[in-house]
Amino acid sequence: MQFHLNGFKAGNPSIADVVRMADQSDVVPKEIDVLIVGCGPAGLTLAAQLSAFPHISTAIIEVKDSPLKLGQADGIACRTMEMFEAFGFAGEIAKEGYWVNETVFWKPGGTGGEFIIRAGRVQDVEDGLSEMPHVILNQARVHDRYLHIMANAPRPINPYYARRVKGIEKSSDPTVSHPITVTIERIDPAHQGQVETLRARYVVGCDGAHSVVRQAIGRPLHGDSANQAWGVMDVLAVTDFPDVRYKAAIQSTEGSILIIPREGGYLTRFYIELEQLAEHERITDRNISIDQLIATAQRILRPYKLDVKEVAWWSCYVIGQRLCDRFDDSVDGEYPRIFIGGDACHTHSPKAGQGMNVSMQDSFNLGWKLAAVLSGQAKTELLATYSAERQAVAKELIDFDREFAAMFSAQTKHTDDPAQGGVDPAEFQRYFVKQGRFTAGTQTSYRKSMIRGHDKWQNLAAGLKIGMRFHSAPVLRLADARLLHLGHEIKADGRWRLFLFAGAQDDGRPDAAIWHLCHFLLEDQNSPIRKYTPEGADIDSVIDVRAIFQRNHRDLAIDAMPSLLRPAKGKYGLHDYEKVFCAEARNGPDIFAERGIDRQAGCMVLVRPDQYVAHILPLDASLDLAEFLDGVFIERDLLRETSKRSSSDLHEQSQAYLRGKER
Amino acid sequence: MQFHLNGFKAGNPSIADVVRMADQSDVVPKEIDVLIVGCGPAGLTLAAQLSAFPHISTAIIEVKDSPLKLGQADGIACRTMEMFEAFGFAGEIAKEGYWVNETVFWKPGGTGGEFIIRAGRVQDVEDGLSEMPHVILNQARVHDRYLHIMANAPRPINPYYARRVKGIEKSSDPTVSHPITVTIERIDPAHQGQVETLRARYVVGCDGAHSVVRQAIGRPLHGDSANQAWGVMDVLAVTDFPDVRYKAAIQSTEGSILIIPREGGYLTRFYIELEQLAEHERITDRNISIDQLIATAQRILRPYKLDVKEVAWWSCYVIGQRLCDRFDDSVDGEYPRIFIGGDACHTHSPKAGQGMNVSMQDSFNLGWKLAAVLSGQAKTELLATYSAERQAVAKELIDFDREFAAMFSAQTKHTDDPAQGGVDPAEFQRYFVKQGRFTAGTQTSYRKSMIRGHDKWQNLAAGLKIGMRFHSAPVLRLADARLLHLGHEIKADGRWRLFLFAGAQDDGRPDAAIWHLCHFLLEDQNSPIRKYTPEGADIDSVIDVRAIFQRNHRDLAIDAMPSLLRPAKGKYGLHDYEKVFCAEARNGPDIFAERGIDRQAGCMVLVRPDQYVAHILPLDASLDLAEFLDGVFIERDLLRETSKRSSSDLHEQSQAYLRGKER
Repeated sequence: MQFHLNGFKAGNPSIADVVRMADQSDVVPKEIDVLIVGCGPAGLTLAAQLSAFPHISTAIIEVKDSPLKLGQADGIACRTMEMFEAFGFAGEIAKEGYWVNETVFWKPGGTGGEFIIRAGRVQDVEDGLSEMPHVILNQARVHDRYLHIMANAPRPINPYYARRVKGIEKSSDPTVSHPITVTIERIDPAHQGQVETLRARYVVGCDGAHSVVRQAIGRPLHGDSANQAWGVMDVLAVTDFPDVRYKAAIQSTEGSILIIPREGGYLTRFYIELEQLAEHERITDRNISIDQLIATAQRILRPYKLDVKEVAWWSCYVIGQRLCDRFDDSVDGEYPRIFIGGDACHTHSPKAGQGMNVSMQDSFNLGWKLAAVLSGQAKTELLATYSAERQAVAKELIDFDREFAAMFSAQTKHTDDPAQGGVDPAEFQRYFVKQGRFTAGTQTSYRKSMIRGHDKWQNLAAGLKIGMRFHSAPVLRLADARLLHLGHEIKADGRWRLFLFAGAQDDGRPDAAIWHLCHFLLEDQNSPIRKYTPEGADIDSVIDVRAIFQRNHRDLAIDAMPSLLRPAKGKYGLHDYEKVFCAEARNGPDIFAERGIDRQAGCMVLVRPDQYVAHILPLDASLDLAEFLDGVFIERDLLRETSKRSSSDLHEQSQAYLRGKER
Repeated sequence: MQFHLNGFKAGNPSIADVVRMADQSDVVPKEIDVLIVGCGPAGLTLAAQLSAFPHISTAIIEVKDSPLKLGQADGIACRTMEMFEAFGFAGEIAKEGYWVNETVFWKPGGTGGEFIIRAGRVQDVEDGLSEMPHVILNQARVHDRYLHIMANAPRPINPYYARRVKGIEKSSDPTVSHPITVTIERIDPAHQGQVETLRARYVVGCDGAHSVVRQAIGRPLHGDSANQAWGVMDVLAVTDFPDVRYKAAIQSTEGSILIIPREGGYLTRFYIELEQLAEHERITDRNISIDQLIATAQRILRPYKLDVKEVAWWSCYVIGQRLCDRFDDSVDGEYPRIFIGGDACHTHSPKAGQGMNVSMQDSFNLGWKLAAVLSGQAKTELLATYSAERQAVAKELIDFDREFAAMFSAQTKHTDDPAQGGVDPAEFQRYFVKQGRFTAGTQTSYRKSMIRGHDKWQNLAAGLKIGMRFHSAPVLRLADARLLHLGHEIKADGRWRLFLFAGAQDDGRPDAAIWHLCHFLLEDQNSPIRKYTPEGADIDSVIDVRAIFQRNHRDLAIDAMPSLLRPAKGKYGLHDYEKVFCAEARNGPDIFAERGIDRQAGCMVLVRPDQYVAHILPLDASLDLAEFLDGVFIERDLLRETSKRSSSDLHEQSQAYLRGKER
């Protein structure tokens, strides 16, 4: 896709001359399950997640008077694309965005560093790190996708714009169903000064660095605001700099630039190093103009010319790294009711492209937990894991960013006079490569908790790390021979996935491990599926079981599989044919090889609704699985009355197996 | 994507509870460049193509009162997906549709053929045939994409529904600009009986088997209506037939079934063989009910059960193969003004899944030609190539279909009594495989004409057949190291593409072949780009030149390339960085190996706006290229006045090359 050729234009590039209007409901409801404050990436990810649940009521409010149209974040890490796939729009983002394939490094050249020369090039995303690309796209276009999902979801949500939170109060009465009272002021001219009052079960502050919600729960941001000023500009420019369509880290004697090519083939973002501020000096005091930004960029880029034709957006900022100790209002282990996510609890420099990504992962982590508790499915303790898991991630990010930002702003080491100090360009490049996994977002690793098991059986699937995101690999679906990515079966629908990787000889027959485990899950009174699936709901509505066999698909029979793997669902009892896969890769190693899965023993891999591996267990550890999930779920009206079916089902399955093998 | 679990629902599956309304303009304009009659696949493809040209006015009318919602065609061949990529929505279709990966064959089993057994399985799309899958999706969803493109295009088009053509008259006065007068009757209750009169330069009848436009130009359909009756039904069913999610060709002693699994994981289409009709008997005389269809399917499927829970759509038909001799109104070589496409000029059985695909290719062939003539770019003779090219394709289709349908309806040969005749299942399967390329739509081969060159230099790119569609392969873009499909650069924008495949050592330097050719194209007075690009238009607006080098991208310099390959475009003169590629494949052979391109000599490949290879020439055959295009284009106000730039440009390019190599 190419666009912006004749000037930057915000919005969907495939829609010409169409102005989209936000659906603006008029009045915020009086009572709601979840109030989200802020329509940034964190808030919208959460709203999109909650809109999947028809029984959960959610409102989202925003200070601005309409959706974001341009500027701000643009980096979309591989891990974020994996999450977008769960929301169903990774393909659209990949189609529209710029793909970061290589990063180039430039350093001072000439005798006195009077011009820049290319210092090196590295592949941007390490081979095998993710099946998804690293993409650059205007944040507003990500918002558009979430708004579309929200507006068209089972429980449609449209934001309430031009609303400011005035006050938040929490009732200490434990019998109150909606203990948080939020006072909201309307700030659009037509409703200026009108006040709305809303009572919520939960409130989530995704309202940025100056978060009102954070202030309301009294959580300070710790850290410091550095005094290095930076400028950022999105421009249409003519230049003879040859790497303007590469991500380019440029170190010159005049300062540093980071070039981020943008979607559409013409737009470019420049991060430009400006001067050091004096202590306590504010960036706004400098009155830096766009002309100064451009002039600085031109000096740094010498001998190349930069002729800026149009500035789509620009800004100046100082780097600071600040972090909250806790991302909720819980005191003394009490049950949290108010949460904060994204910039509300961690701020840092934008150049590593982490802010938007980490913020969205924050609320993807929180969304399914809120839904599970609000649905009466999971214990309220689950909510405490949000702060525990995400605060640790933010801490790592802040540490990384401090180091990265310092390295970026440091003087380049003079090869002829290393005593002057500074950073060797080669060292900077090595650091950059080393941190590739971190910035791709695939290194997040949660610690042991009620939703993250122990490591005893980690060796059964050495390449699927417990506590880390499920790393997808291709498989072939038995029922229709379609090659697909197993990880893409994990949709953002609040369900847990249990992947059963079969041992080498297992073909689903009644005396083998997969069959025994499926039989346990369907029939045993200790089965988490029997205990936690609501009566009348589809068998896979809480825990979705899929099996991956090592046999060729032509040697397996779908009608010989345990009935849990071809369940009858919905009002007609139609069979779901998308539960069984084969480890056939058309080219290269199969999923067992790629992910180090024990070919002889097989294993089960339990994956959380946010795509993180919760546990890995042997196929015969059904009671361990049950025990682990007993720590998460709340028992409810069961499928017990169906157990009378069990012996006849067993007989039928054995017969079906024999019929399947005869063919 | 899964859907339809709790009942079939037409429309976009990712939109819940949203009713889409067609934009209904009220009155058809009085004068128009092109009137399209019929909102089927052929009509909408043409409208979508023409909507890309802001200076061309198009209206499309339809007898029905709203867009199609369900039923009818569902097969989308690989070649059609390649075309959808040119229109920008192949990804959405691939995401939503069912992918045909394997076809299974079933035959009579048991001693007397009293039940069916599996006879064989074949991969559906041969390896390397296309980078696109073979997809099944409700025709209405394809319509939706076209309607979206049309509504949001540079020249938006919304259909006029509930309109019937009453009369078509052509003026014989050659000085009349809009010689066709069409009388249209409105048939919706609110406007019943109102008559509109419209004058058009061109009329295209995409109005189906009973085409009024075809009748108006007096072109009869030749052929015969066979007496074999078939039923078709889209159902939600519970069955123990194990291959219900495979495309399955079933031959039993009770008749034949073709199963086509459908999008969403639950819906299935059955084509069911019914009885022979008596001579002159009409299918409607039989009053066949859906219950009869289901009962027949149940008999054929024995020993498997079929429990139909819901019927989304069904119909009965007889197979017939009929064809027009000519697809336009031209008599005695006169310039055509009225065209017919799709079912209006060729009808056949639906089971080979060809109808919708061939119809769309018809109007994709016509669209750019109409646009080129209406833009004053191409000679009017171009319009005669539509009928010549597409009638030949339809003839092949009809012949194929007659053979395929006969084979499908024939008795299965009894292995114990072959003297009874019939078709051997193994023979049927072999035939099916052999015809895979044909049904994929990739075998279409146009004969020599003003837009299809001679074969003298075919050997320079043995795998890119002149007259056949440009067979894509992956390349790497120099300016940003992105791996992409070269064929996907061919968008449905009416432009010609000239791909320059460089010889092994060529890196764009001033003394080598690519540079010389680019210099000719930019500067020489015989250059088709100089002669046919309108003044003030971007240099690539008529012929879009791209180069593919064999050198590694790290050994090439974008700023050392001829300026034609990094042209300054648009109001700002921004550089287009998407013209240069490298033949680097991450895995497997590169495009030179895949497509048999002469590594030493290189070559140029000229591709028409509909993705067909027009010509292959040596890199030094610039005058042959010019001569070929002189046969198509009309000379107009030129870039001549810019030729004074030429010598300084030459110097600048040489300098740039040297600078690029220094780095």
